[in-house]
Amino acid sequence: MSVKTYIESNKDRFLDELFSLIRIPSISAKHENKPDMQVCAQRWTELLLASGADKAVVMPTDGNPVVYGEKMISPEAKTVLVYAHYDVMPAEPLELWKSNPFEPELRDGRIWARGADDDKGQGMIQVKGFETALKNDLLHCNVKFIFEGEEEIGSPSLESFCRKNKGLLKADVILVSDTSMISAETPSLTTGLRGLAYWEVEVTGPNRDLHSGHFGGAVANPINVLCKLMADITDADGRITIPGFYDDVEEVSAAEREMIARIPFDEKKYMEAIGVKALSGEKGYSTLERNSCRPSFDICGIWGGYTGEGSKTVLPSKAFAKVSCRLVPHQDHEKISRMFEEYMARVAPDYVTVKVTPSHGGQGYVCPIDMPAYQAAEKAVGIAFGMKPLAVRRGGSIPIISTFEQILGIKTVLMGFGLEQNAIHSPNESCRLDIFYKGIEAVARFYKEFK
Amino acid sequence: MSVKTYIESNKDRFLDELFSLIRIPSISAKHENKPDMQVCAQRWTELLLASGADKAVVMPTDGNPVVYGEKMISPEAKTVLVYAHYDVMPAEPLELWKSNPFEPELRDGRIWARGADDDKGQGMIQVKGFETALKNDLLHCNVKFIFEGEEEIGSPSLESFCRKNKGLLKADVILVSDTSMISAETPSLTTGLRGLAYWEVEVTGPNRDLHSGHFGGAVANPINVLCKLMADITDADGRITIPGFYDDVEEVSAAEREMIARIPFDEKKYMEAIGVKALSGEKGYSTLERNSCRPSFDICGIWGGYTGEGSKTVLPSKAFAKVSCRLVPHQDHEKISRMFEEYMARVAPDYVTVKVTPSHGGQGYVCPIDMPAYQAAEKAVGIAFGMKPLAVRRGGSIPIISTFEQILGIKTVLMGFGLEQNAIHSPNESCRLDIFYKGIEAVARFYKEFK
Repeated sequence: MSVKTYIESNKDRFLDELFSLIRIPSISAKHENKPDMQVCAQRWTELLLASGADKAVVMPTDGNPVVYGEKMISPEAKTVLVYAHYDVMPAEPLELWKSNPFEPELRDGRIWARGADDDKGQGMIQVKGFETALKNDLLHCNVKFIFEGEEEIGSPSLESFCRKNKGLLKADVILVSDTSMISAETPSLTTGLRGLAYWEVEVTGPNRDLHSGHFGGAVANPINVLCKLMADITDADGRITIPGFYDDVEEVSAAEREMIARIPFDEKKYMEAIGVKALSGEKGYSTLERNSCRPSFDICGIWGGYTGEGSKTVLPSKAFAKVSCRLVPHQDHEKISRMFEEYMARVAPDYVTVKVTPSHGGQGYVCPIDMPAYQAAEKAVGIAFGMKPLAVRRGGSIPIISTFEQILGIKTVLMGFGLEQNAIHSPNESCRLDIFYKGIEAVARFYKEFK
Repeated sequence: MSVKTYIESNKDRFLDELFSLIRIPSISAKHENKPDMQVCAQRWTELLLASGADKAVVMPTDGNPVVYGEKMISPEAKTVLVYAHYDVMPAEPLELWKSNPFEPELRDGRIWARGADDDKGQGMIQVKGFETALKNDLLHCNVKFIFEGEEEIGSPSLESFCRKNKGLLKADVILVSDTSMISAETPSLTTGLRGLAYWEVEVTGPNRDLHSGHFGGAVANPINVLCKLMADITDADGRITIPGFYDDVEEVSAAEREMIARIPFDEKKYMEAIGVKALSGEKGYSTLERNSCRPSFDICGIWGGYTGEGSKTVLPSKAFAKVSCRLVPHQDHEKISRMFEEYMARVAPDYVTVKVTPSHGGQGYVCPIDMPAYQAAEKAVGIAFGMKPLAVRRGGSIPIISTFEQILGIKTVLMGFGLEQNAIHSPNESCRLDIFYKGIEAVARFYKEFK
């Protein structure tokens, strides 16, 4: 039976299996969902075994459990380690969802749900692609699976898990579907990722909320101060002003800038899709360079004072911000993290106390396009999507990719099938059905190619 | 019976009556407390009648009802109109309260509760002072009471109420206890107030929350933009940069600066009380000038993006701030409000949409110290507190004071008994018991003096 026929005749079951995962609200950022993590990991083991794995177990970590599975063909054969994550982002703001984020709905040829793409949908693409290859005798290598439950909170437990299980995780290459393609018409493989550094900033002024009439003008307002501190981090040219921040940034080579310029990209459509009248970023770089090869500074959340109904004239005691920097290869996230802490300590005015708490971070990554596994992926995606995929750097971060390289010494091929319009991390996340099935075909053909 | 003896022999009843008001959570900023406004107004009418008023009724307005009461001595006698407000600020953040904000507690010689000072405590001082004067045959004037339920949200209905009831509210002077004294040792009367302008600012970037990895660096982040807009409103010298903002500001006269310099003020104690290591404000002015005679800009609240547990890497769609300016006499709050709106429209960058919604506002006020009522108040407070009160300008705003002047043509004497340490508008609001009773004595003696 051909790969296409097998997928066609099992398509509904594939969906049902994906839906059974989506219905488990495995939100790693929230304590209240702790029990769901265990349930979701357990469900994955059932699905792995049903898909043809010889073995699938839930393994404890210091945090949420890891799902490990394997299908061993022969000790001589090469081994592929498939990584995915079963945790998802919080669904807030809930009021913006057109349907229940944890009850998948099929509309307009798409699956609508939190995790439809990131990363339950793409995880299923890997597992069903493996099943398709296996059931059609196309599998020539051993396959191991490691699915974690803390990717969206920075994989705090995965590094120590890898250190403890180096033998178990031994492989020739890691295969990951957690990235996106340029578009449905222009398939691509991700050959670079940005790193990440994340902090929470707390500014404390007076020891209690004050009446803005009695104190306003004479006592520093921590929200005013926080806004000033945050505003000063970026200059008029969109460059980050923290001294030394760009020291390790490798300038984008002329060759790569040319390649990026060749990527089909309609800036007008891009702006329309996100509903902005203009774009803004670092002076001297194109949009595609800004969101892939250049670092960025974003305030991901801010809060302080009275945010309820009506108006309250208060000079608050505290103000908070969650801030992050996207980093590029060669920038060390720990060095940048210290640099930011030292910078904030240096610029904090004496009339407030500024506390910086580093959160998770990760290094950037670059994948050599001459690797056999990369070339197998390139060929497989080419057949499934009818066009050779472009090799592109993406702006997102998957910190554990570099962790794998450092600890397990294994390179990763990022074979992602997401699309910008899938709105991952946002309300109304979705995944195109046709891409879901093409992805499964591409993974099946990868195993056919990879020997 | 002497004033002191009368107060002494009724002190517990005075407290019980105050507590019965405090237990009604009359928070005007919250819809959920609408029913409590009616209950609180009703309770005031009972207390006014019990205190000796001939008449006390709840009168409807477009918003929360107004309590009106009166004691008419003779058509020939002068008339004092006593203003207070029965609504209170929200009690949030609740977790910082040592005791239930709406269940008064006596600790360390203080009453602890929301409204213990602002303005249920001070309203009771007025009513019990009136009762004491009446029961001791010291009352030589007619007394009218008007207690509103929307002061903390800017008195949206009071102006039209005054226009509709000019005859009913006819009086020679208005007496208000809703301000504070320099300290328990240095009694003072407030002869000036700052005005207020308040806005909500909404910055919209992309039409949905975006993944900060895929878009960060290429798409403007509305929180980053909001911080920049807010930071730019104040310059390095602590001056507000909005063009024309200072046009109508009357420079503090040398004479007044001298008087302010004579006010006993320990900057070190002031800093210790609010727990800051340094003060900050407009260059060239002292702390007491900054918080009373100079305008200020405060961000009262800010929010946007992910503010929940853990870290979420998001480039949010929207960011919000509630901002306010304290204004000084001669600055027109409506002119300033338009000025701010026009300024924001002018400086808003094209990659975001900035929406400014004006909230309530009010003019500043100055009270002439040669008014008979002011002099009666000065004498009365002098006797009750054993020291002639200083005449000082305060930084707070009571917008309706200028409304009274414009619509009713009546000047106000601000006979307030609050203290900075009472923490009004903050968690653990309180009122000193001894001051509560001294205040009652002072009001009783005011009636003895005012003919």
